[in-house]
Amino acid sequence: MVGMNESPKPVVVLVETQMAMNIGMCARAMLNCGLDELRLVSPRDGWPNDEALAPARESAERLIRDAKCYDTLVEATADCQFVYAATARNRQLNTPAMPPTEAAAEIRKQGGKAALVFGPEARGLSNEDVALANVLVHYPMNPEFTSLNLAQAVLLMGWEWWRQGEDIPQSYADHWQPAPQGEVAYFLKRLERMLDARGFFPNELKKPSTVQKLHSLFHRMNPTEQELRSLQGILTSLGGKSAPESEPTSEC
Amino acid sequence: MVGMNESPKPVVVLVETQMAMNIGMCARAMLNCGLDELRLVSPRDGWPNDEALAPARESAERLIRDAKCYDTLVEATADCQFVYAATARNRQLNTPAMPPTEAAAEIRKQGGKAALVFGPEARGLSNEDVALANVLVHYPMNPEFTSLNLAQAVLLMGWEWWRQGEDIPQSYADHWQPAPQGEVAYFLKRLERMLDARGFFPNELKKPSTVQKLHSLFHRMNPTEQELRSLQGILTSLGGKSAPESEPTSEC
Repeated sequence: MVGMNESPKPVVVLVETQMAMNIGMCARAMLNCGLDELRLVSPRDGWPNDEALAPARESAERLIRDAKCYDTLVEATADCQFVYAATARNRQLNTPAMPPTEAAAEIRKQGGKAALVFGPEARGLSNEDVALANVLVHYPMNPEFTSLNLAQAVLLMGWEWWRQGEDIPQSYADHWQPAPQGEVAYFLKRLERMLDARGFFPNELKKPSTVQKLHSLFHRMNPTEQELRSLQGILTSLGGKSAPESEPTSEC
Repeated sequence: MVGMNESPKPVVVLVETQMAMNIGMCARAMLNCGLDELRLVSPRDGWPNDEALAPARESAERLIRDAKCYDTLVEATADCQFVYAATARNRQLNTPAMPPTEAAAEIRKQGGKAALVFGPEARGLSNEDVALANVLVHYPMNPEFTSLNLAQAVLLMGWEWWRQGEDIPQSYADHWQPAPQGEVAYFLKRLERMLDARGFFPNELKKPSTVQKLHSLFHRMNPTEQELRSLQGILTSLGGKSAPESEPTSEC
């Protein structure tokens, strides 16, 4: 599925992550979004670290075991053509900044190898590391509550990359197969006859517009054949009564 | 900022959530995305529950304290015009299904009050509750790793709603003010003269195209006035040397 995309998948680079468990959470978020190459720069508690495996499952475990560890961000991104650094702070740099949606669109379009770089949990990327970026990724969250945890930041960036791929279904109504419209019309004709017999249309002049509203209502519902059979069953059941219902009927 | 949007904010409805801490995590994700109305249907451990406050901070705490608790989903969504239910399973229903991106676009467009409904952590929404939805929201994650936790599911749906608002900045280069292009040209003229004096252009025929490449390189960089002063300083510093450098120079 992913292989059909033209541009290579971005790698995720986590710099000086403090909690190994968060590395595991990031790995899960990556995998949710079809990303599978993780690189680490000087994780606080060393590497490999079994605590990273705690929140992981199945294939996320493989991703963590395959993660490569580097001493510096320069080394970790040496083979990448584009470096996108997630940073909330507004630094004295002239590097262009954009939200994840646009960053992902660029990465998809550029077609080169991109690194998505995330700093440590509490303090984010250092100025030194931010200076290595070609692009800063700013998360335009609610200004009254901007704090995202590391895995959430990875998830949102990954989601934007993933959902902008060509293979993501846009909208679907699963196995919904509406009945042929003629069958809906047949049902409506029967309903109309039954209503007519019960005096539902007291005013012959108004009848056409009332019938039209009923048509619109049931065609909008667009039932399947099975649903239509249920509706026919309801008519049969109601129509079988020997006397009209006692409640007053009203027009649609 | 949010108040400028025309459609009312969707409410988030968490059904039979098991861990109160997850309610807190969801509240944070909501607030990240400018959502502030939380409703609960029969949380497992009762309500109010102080454990929900553990992961919350500042304003998220208010959101949790204001959360209303209901016995059934029917009651929780009674005043909503649209019900969007997050569900991974493919049920025998003909309710239309769509990914969060499209669901959010619909909600923005419709302008009515919408509920975003999420089931319990482990098993998701019941068939009974799913049948109350107008639309199912399917998360089109990597088919090899589909599992999202509750707060992540809320975050992605919230993010889609939030980022599609009119107030989200699309791209920005903060306070980057490039220098007037004439100053870049002045710098390039000086560089060219200095290179000429050092014999950088051995071939007069090739010189124009080499100069052109240098122009393109520095204009693409589009330096600020301050950066340009640094570059001029470098030229002054290098040009001040009494002898040409010993390394062979090469064309760009």
